[in-house]
Amino acid sequence: MSFQERFNGLELPASADFHVHLRDGTMMETVTPTIRKGGVDTVYVMPNLVPPLTTPAQSLSYKSRLEAIDPSVTYLMSLYLHPSITPEIIREAKAAGITGVKSYPAGVTTNSAAGVVSYEAFYPVFEEMERQNMILNLHGEKPSGEDITVLNAEERFLPTLKEIHKRFPKLRIILEHCTTAAALKTVMECGPTVAGTITAHHLFLTVDDWASDPFCFCKPVAKLPSDREALLKAAAANSPKIFLGTDSAPHPATAKRGGADGKGKTVAGVFTQPYATQLAVGAFEKAIEKGWLKDNEVTVDVVRGFLGENGRKFYGVPQSESRIVLRKGEEKVVEAFASKGGELEVVPFRRGEPTWSVEWK
Amino acid sequence: MSFQERFNGLELPASADFHVHLRDGTMMETVTPTIRKGGVDTVYVMPNLVPPLTTPAQSLSYKSRLEAIDPSVTYLMSLYLHPSITPEIIREAKAAGITGVKSYPAGVTTNSAAGVVSYEAFYPVFEEMERQNMILNLHGEKPSGEDITVLNAEERFLPTLKEIHKRFPKLRIILEHCTTAAALKTVMECGPTVAGTITAHHLFLTVDDWASDPFCFCKPVAKLPSDREALLKAAAANSPKIFLGTDSAPHPATAKRGGADGKGKTVAGVFTQPYATQLAVGAFEKAIEKGWLKDNEVTVDVVRGFLGENGRKFYGVPQSESRIVLRKGEEKVVEAFASKGGELEVVPFRRGEPTWSVEWK
Repeated sequence: MSFQERFNGLELPASADFHVHLRDGTMMETVTPTIRKGGVDTVYVMPNLVPPLTTPAQSLSYKSRLEAIDPSVTYLMSLYLHPSITPEIIREAKAAGITGVKSYPAGVTTNSAAGVVSYEAFYPVFEEMERQNMILNLHGEKPSGEDITVLNAEERFLPTLKEIHKRFPKLRIILEHCTTAAALKTVMECGPTVAGTITAHHLFLTVDDWASDPFCFCKPVAKLPSDREALLKAAAANSPKIFLGTDSAPHPATAKRGGADGKGKTVAGVFTQPYATQLAVGAFEKAIEKGWLKDNEVTVDVVRGFLGENGRKFYGVPQSESRIVLRKGEEKVVEAFASKGGELEVVPFRRGEPTWSVEWK
Repeated sequence: MSFQERFNGLELPASADFHVHLRDGTMMETVTPTIRKGGVDTVYVMPNLVPPLTTPAQSLSYKSRLEAIDPSVTYLMSLYLHPSITPEIIREAKAAGITGVKSYPAGVTTNSAAGVVSYEAFYPVFEEMERQNMILNLHGEKPSGEDITVLNAEERFLPTLKEIHKRFPKLRIILEHCTTAAALKTVMECGPTVAGTITAHHLFLTVDDWASDPFCFCKPVAKLPSDREALLKAAAANSPKIFLGTDSAPHPATAKRGGADGKGKTVAGVFTQPYATQLAVGAFEKAIEKGWLKDNEVTVDVVRGFLGENGRKFYGVPQSESRIVLRKGEEKVVEAFASKGGELEVVPFRRGEPTWSVEWK
């Protein structure tokens, strides 16, 4: 049976997306309603608003704004690692039901200006997180400069991951949006408390794609064909340490194309929220077509594991009771998602391309 | 004396730019008048119009259109390497005063769809070019695919350069727009008939710059900081085998930002024509500031050699009698160059940034 024959009509638990940017205000109102279209009922929400979410109260207030838009989604919340975060705030956050803390190296991606310069200063915070069984989410890139570029920034970060893991072996750590074979190797070499997420778009892209298309440009950037193959193999390994986190990152189309006069820089981020499940399934299908994966490597268990089961286990959240059905029909990715008032539009990844579909049971 | 003290007010021969795209129609009318603003009186003109220039008659007709716009510039003309080019056409081209033949691998850059798939088919043409003492200009990139990306496409092309040079040791060959240490090493290892051009923008850029700015994106793409340093050192070596060819490649600003709806891909090309000399001088200045070059490495002889003397010798054209004067004042790169009727505008490299100035004596 072909991949399409095996997966068309297949029933799966609702997916979980362990890395999403839902923004605030009009953008939040535009993208939050698309979570369920992507076959997802649980999201782990990034804290890099402006200003960043650095207190439990801010995070809970944000959660209530999200729930007001779609209360049928489970929002797992995070704080932004920042000098103002103390062990005491970690205890408060745990008591408030906040799941983890996201670390951004200073200046490497959208709204990361308040990010981390040195990790050692946070060791008391990590110690308390370990004690409280909270999750540390790492944007694993060294800032560019001297001999560090967007191409080796992730690989250069890996010693930091290993060092934090060594110091805090019981602390659950996730290396977010892995893009290199080297990153996956390091994640697998670490103990069971270290996991890696993979985005849907990095299963499709290489450097050639974002070179000429700002809507494929994100941080970390997609790397080489050999890295893409390593990501696909990791996603198909059904490891408890590897699962989906889309890093869906909506930006107004005008910002992606250089601002109002079209002459500025583009911003980093690929918007995949409405097609989170569909894209992941489509990436497996394409990988088999291209010969990067064998047909029998992508089992139903693999897809179920990658799309939610593995991540829910790692995060310690219940498996979903809701069910979705995969379909391969005539659907195409829409050209743009517009805000209600039309003030902004967001262009999704693979706009206009054929896509798998998701139905809710 | 500082670099600025040494070069401010310095008189030099007019520069020669041995790789320019002047396009046709409205774009030609917009960019051709900017050649002299860049301190340049001699240009080697690329043949990748639509359709490409594959006959001496087409090339001469194009030359007359360029001369009608600015007759004070010397236009050295080229043909586009294409299956229709025969040894007989080479002889005709030589007789008509055409300087060389440009080879584009199929599909790697702007208007290269008609480019070369296999070089061996052109060996009879190369043999006749060698006999006629014409120049072969190579766009040295392998097309992307499998394990070839925009990052290693140039390095993968180098065996082809070596093979052609070995077969035709007296054929003058130029590896255009070198972007890697590996390419420069190969050019230097070849005999005196092989030279390399370097653009002004590749003396400034690395991968991080074009990742977020379509106006810094060109083919071949800028590579790593170590490659940029190798380019600067090569440009400062005052080698007869290394000289300026800007590959100035104007595109309408709308095309650079993804077409009319802003959702398409961007096109490859950086527009530097109006600041060809100024940018090269500015790149040397910046390299000294950053410590990539030592102050005493960038002599007046180096700058004169890189900006025209070396290239004119290699091409066998007379040294310029015209003189320009370098100035460092308050000039900034303009935001855009608009066509007369306002139908299109072209955004120059380093728009809005301070720049050296050029005065004609």
